[in-house]
Amino acid sequence: MDTPKLETFPNPHPNREYVIKHVQPEFTSVCPVTGHPDFGTITMEYVAGDLCVELKSLKFYYQSYRNEGAFYEDLINRFIDDFVAALNPKWLEITGKFTPRGGMYSEISASHVRDDMIEDDGCDH
Amino acid sequence: MDTPKLETFPNPHPNREYVIKHVQPEFTSVCPVTGHPDFGTITMEYVAGDLCVELKSLKFYYQSYRNEGAFYEDLINRFIDDFVAALNPKWLEITGKFTPRGGMYSEISASHVRDDMIEDDGCDH
Amino acid sequence: MDTPKLETFPNPHPNREYVIKHVQPEFTSVCPVTGHPDFGTITMEYVAGDLCVELKSLKFYYQSYRNEGAFYEDLINRFIDDFVAALNPKWLEITGKFTPRGGMYSEISASHVRDDMIEDDGCDH
Amino acid sequence: MDTPKLETFPNPHPNREYVIKHVQPEFTSVCPVTGHPDFGTITMEYVAGDLCVELKSLKFYYQSYRNEGAFYEDLINRFIDDFVAALNPKWLEITGKFTPRGGMYSEISASHVRDDMIEDDGCDH
Amino acid sequence: MDTPKLETFPNPHPNREYVIKHVQPEFTSVCPVTGHPDFGTITMEYVAGDLCVELKSLKFYYQSYRNEGAFYEDLINRFIDDFVAALNPKWLEITGKFTPRGGMYSEISASHVRDDMIEDDGCDH
Amino acid sequence: MDTPKLETFPNPHPNREYVIKHVQPEFTSVCPVTGHPDFGTITMEYVAGDLCVELKSLKFYYQSYRNEGAFYEDLINRFIDDFVAALNPKWLEITGKFTPRGGMYSEISASHVRDDMIEDDGCDH
Amino acid sequence: MDTPKLETFPNPHPNREYVIKHVQPEFTSVCPVTGHPDFGTITMEYVAGDLCVELKSLKFYYQSYRNEGAFYEDLINRFIDDFVAALNPKWLEITGKFTPRGGMYSEISASHVRDDMIEDDGCDH
Amino acid sequence: MDTPKLETFPNPHPNREYVIKHVQPEFTSVCPVTGHPDFGTITMEYVAGDLCVELKSLKFYYQSYRNEGAFYEDLINRFIDDFVAALNPKWLEITGKFTPRGGMYSEISASHVRDDMIEDDGCDH
Amino acid sequence: MDTPKLETFPNPHPNREYVIKHVQPEFTSVCPVTGHPDFGTITMEYVAGDLCVELKSLKFYYQSYRNEGAFYEDLINRFIDDFVAALNPKWLEITGKFTPRGGMYSEISASHVRDDMIEDDGCDH
Amino acid sequence: MDTPKLETFPNPHPNREYVIKHVQPEFTSVCPVTGHPDFGTITMEYVAGDLCVELKSLKFYYQSYRNEGAFYEDLINRFIDDFVAALNPKWLEITGKFTPRGGMYSEISASHVRDDMIEDDGCDH
Repeated sequence: MDTPKLETFPNPHPNREYVIKHVQPEFTSVCPVTGHPDFGTITMEYVAGDLCVELKSLKFYYQSYRNEGAFYEDLINRFIDDFVAALNPKWLEITGKFTPRGGMYSEISASHVRDDMIEDDGCDH
Repeated sequence: MDTPKLETFPNPHPNREYVIKHVQPEFTSVCPVTGHPDFGTITMEYVAGDLCVELKSLKFYYQSYRNEGAFYEDLINRFIDDFVAALNPKWLEITGKFTPRGGMYSEISASHVRDDMIEDDGCDH
Repeated sequence: MDTPKLETFPNPHPNREYVIKHVQPEFTSVCPVTGHPDFGTITMEYVAGDLCVELKSLKFYYQSYRNEGAFYEDLINRFIDDFVAALNPKWLEITGKFTPRGGMYSEISASHVRDDMIEDDGCDH
Repeated sequence: MDTPKLETFPNPHPNREYVIKHVQPEFTSVCPVTGHPDFGTITMEYVAGDLCVELKSLKFYYQSYRNEGAFYEDLINRFIDDFVAALNPKWLEITGKFTPRGGMYSEISASHVRDDMIEDDGCDH
Repeated sequence: MDTPKLETFPNPHPNREYVIKHVQPEFTSVCPVTGHPDFGTITMEYVAGDLCVELKSLKFYYQSYRNEGAFYEDLINRFIDDFVAALNPKWLEITGKFTPRGGMYSEISASHVRDDMIEDDGCDH
Repeated sequence: MDTPKLETFPNPHPNREYVIKHVQPEFTSVCPVTGHPDFGTITMEYVAGDLCVELKSLKFYYQSYRNEGAFYEDLINRFIDDFVAALNPKWLEITGKFTPRGGMYSEISASHVRDDMIEDDGCDH
Repeated sequence: MDTPKLETFPNPHPNREYVIKHVQPEFTSVCPVTGHPDFGTITMEYVAGDLCVELKSLKFYYQSYRNEGAFYEDLINRFIDDFVAALNPKWLEITGKFTPRGGMYSEISASHVRDDMIEDDGCDH
Repeated sequence: MDTPKLETFPNPHPNREYVIKHVQPEFTSVCPVTGHPDFGTITMEYVAGDLCVELKSLKFYYQSYRNEGAFYEDLINRFIDDFVAALNPKWLEITGKFTPRGGMYSEISASHVRDDMIEDDGCDH
Repeated sequence: MDTPKLETFPNPHPNREYVIKHVQPEFTSVCPVTGHPDFGTITMEYVAGDLCVELKSLKFYYQSYRNEGAFYEDLINRFIDDFVAALNPKWLEITGKFTPRGGMYSEISASHVRDDMIEDDGCDH
Repeated sequence: MDTPKLETFPNPHPNREYVIKHVQPEFTSVCPVTGHPDFGTITMEYVAGDLCVELKSLKFYYQSYRNEGAFYEDLINRFIDDFVAALNPKWLEITGKFTPRGGMYSEISASHVRDDMIEDDGCDH
């Protein structure tokens, strides 16, 4: 699969740690077993390092999964990998909430913390 | 009672601890006292170890309780036992929310943590 | 299939046309093609003639469909037939709203008017 | 059963036909079969004739059913009878929406039109 | 009681019959029996004749009831009378929805049609 | 464009006019101008003649629009045409509610009545 | 004020009378008295004649009111006039729901029917 | 006051600490000052020790307060005392949410922890 | 300003720390700048010491602000001061949520902890 | 860009740390790339130092962004900077929730703590 490039722009306030959230309720991919379409809402939340993701390219990135066959568990982890590669964020969390299949629905989430952001917990070990 | 086998597939990203949630709003079993049907929503949330549960087999597993008589408190604990046996997850939580009986409704939840996942709390004892 | 008898009691106010509605959100039957359980909410609304339906027997009537295989379209019409036979109501309407299958959900409704209740529409023909 | 008197006050604008609605979400009576309490919301809507119902006495009227055993179908019709006797309204509608029993819930409604309010439908018969 | 003048401005499109609705969720007056404050939402809907009501003066008009003791049934009818006197609208409807007292809440509505707006019903008498 | 055949089964109760509704909240097609995906919910409501639509084939029918470029106004009318050709229903209504574009969202609906179902309106012409 | 041209495209199914609705929740204009911004949701519903409105130009049309001072009552009627001039629809309805000012909020709606669409009411006069 | 006995059954999984919640939205008692009925929702949440509460007896227990006069603050604490005496749970929390009186509504909650469940907070004192 | 006395009654269970919450959605005062009425919901939550607040006197206390001019920030702090003086609670929190003015709405909250309730945080300094 | 001055008034209770929240659901600015308007809700929450923000000037401050082109990420950080400069609050948090563009919507939040408010975490380092 060939995903489009995630464009970025410089974080306008790199010295402040603030939270950016983009929600895409119009995500669709394909079930790798049956070939039928899957539908879901993808929520991306992150604390930027030097780069912010550009919204239009993020939309194209999600759209590129339209004919891609992948398990829910796999999708969310690939998003993490791709966003970390493109943005190197201080912190990142992705959640996918998918519509019911066979009466049951699923929600998968994963997160990533940049190595230098893992702090001491402030207690004396 | 003879429950169908919970099928599994290898966790595609075993090195990342991420959360998988499957919600079944169409659960029904039988009251062990009156023989009348009970209805509820079962939510399963877990951090996979080496294995993920396959969705179709999970659906069949829940369906196999359709004519089974069991107390709410018992059901949730049996789910925990069966899922731990099949998946050996790092962490698992099950919640059952059942419809009103006599004007009153009930919600039962239980969880399990794999032995090697119980960490120090980071303070000096 | 052998449905339990719908018990009745005498309409306590037969001279007034008033509306009785019973909603059963805990209906379940079986898909005649796949054998999997279906779930739905059945709403019964009627103007009684001489008889009212007794609630407990209505509950047992619905429960008797638990292992019955039937199309949605068929179920709703069979309810109409059975309720008309048992109650001979002046007016009756049944609606079934079923949970999603393959992303799509369905709602079926039918009604019945007693012959002597079909009035002139008050205009001069 | 001895219900308290429904107090009234003169309709302050008897020449205008306007609609008065009082909703009591805290109604409780007793099931005549099992002796267990029933709970529901009673909605009264009417166009006053010469009299309006006084709110405090309406509250006491409803409270007097607290230990009364009666079928839903009977309750709503008795309300109609009592309110017509006390107020002689031009138009009156009562709806009772009761909480679930055995998973099923019920809603009963009845109405009354004062004889002199039944008009021609304006078409030529 | 001395209510402030309802200011008006010329209907900018008097030849088209369109509907204007103003909702005031911050109405308060005083119970004429107990002296305690009452709270409610007043909805005014009308088809203007030559005049529209000016919003600021409408706000002041409602505010002038802040220390006025009046029954709900009376309030709504007085609004009708005052708005008809000030605006002579083609059609007007007022609804007041008041907050619960003794567990019960009330909703009163009245309407007015200008004499020349009462048309034939289109049937042959 | 090549849409899959809409499968049918015989209406199990052709003598009763009852309403069948299927809602597909997972519809997606392509904007004919920009090539970007559109998302919406398609609601089909009909009174069957001799034939009912089979649910699985309806799902495949909708899925076949996944890579089709079409205006909203056009889509809804093509659904009407295709369903009339396949089912010849007594009555049919289709509504499409589409997600926001440029802050604005759209809803299109059309209906069809079988020729022999257009009755006199009961008045004397 | 200079509003941008409302672009149109030919109605793809001019022989069927179907309903098109566009909702713009992001409308803003300016209060002609205070100069402060007003905010509201504009809903346009119409049955097209030979022309449909193009969505992008409709968005630009609404945006052109951003710095325009106008009363709510005036805005809605100007929309009606402009849409009739551009589209000559068979039927058109516009509703504007504006956010609270001084605790009170307003909703204005107007409609238009093409001359040749005003039919007899089917009764014998 | 004479409350019925709270029946129990052995906790089917005493080695796992799981949470049991029973919600009774149909609670009614009497105001000790005015004698008027009070209405509320009582939520009981607990981690069982050796015993679970049997649902039917819990319903009867709550019903026994129907003609009991008690302040909200007192009720919740008496529930705690009675449930601790009957079940000796590891942890217990009761919340009562009562309907508005004089425009104002109240919510009271209390909890209890079994002595042997009070752990160190994990820090070095 | 002369506020009515907050009546109290002895805490019926002074040895258990439980939470009491009273919500008044019908609060109104006056803007000290414009003289126009303000509306809001006041939530009081506390852990009683030896005294509980009596509900009727709390209602009168709030009502006494009806013609008082005060900033939101000031109101909430005066409530804290008055409730502490009358009840000397172990813990107290007040939140006021006020209705929109100029499109914007405000929420203010303050809390108080009795001196002897401020504990060590359990860590070794 | 020239923003109007944020007016302040002295904190009436500077010795108590309480939370002030102002929500502006009517914010609009301009996309710096396309020039089209953006819409969102801005929530400001702070613990005042010596100064509180005056509401009218806060409204004017937000309104001054009406024709300003800025990225979401930039806006929220500029608010933080301006509010810190004007108020020097002990703690401040700003969240902006913006309406969907291309099906996707965004939420950005940032916070600030006054230097002297950063306390020890109470553990022994």
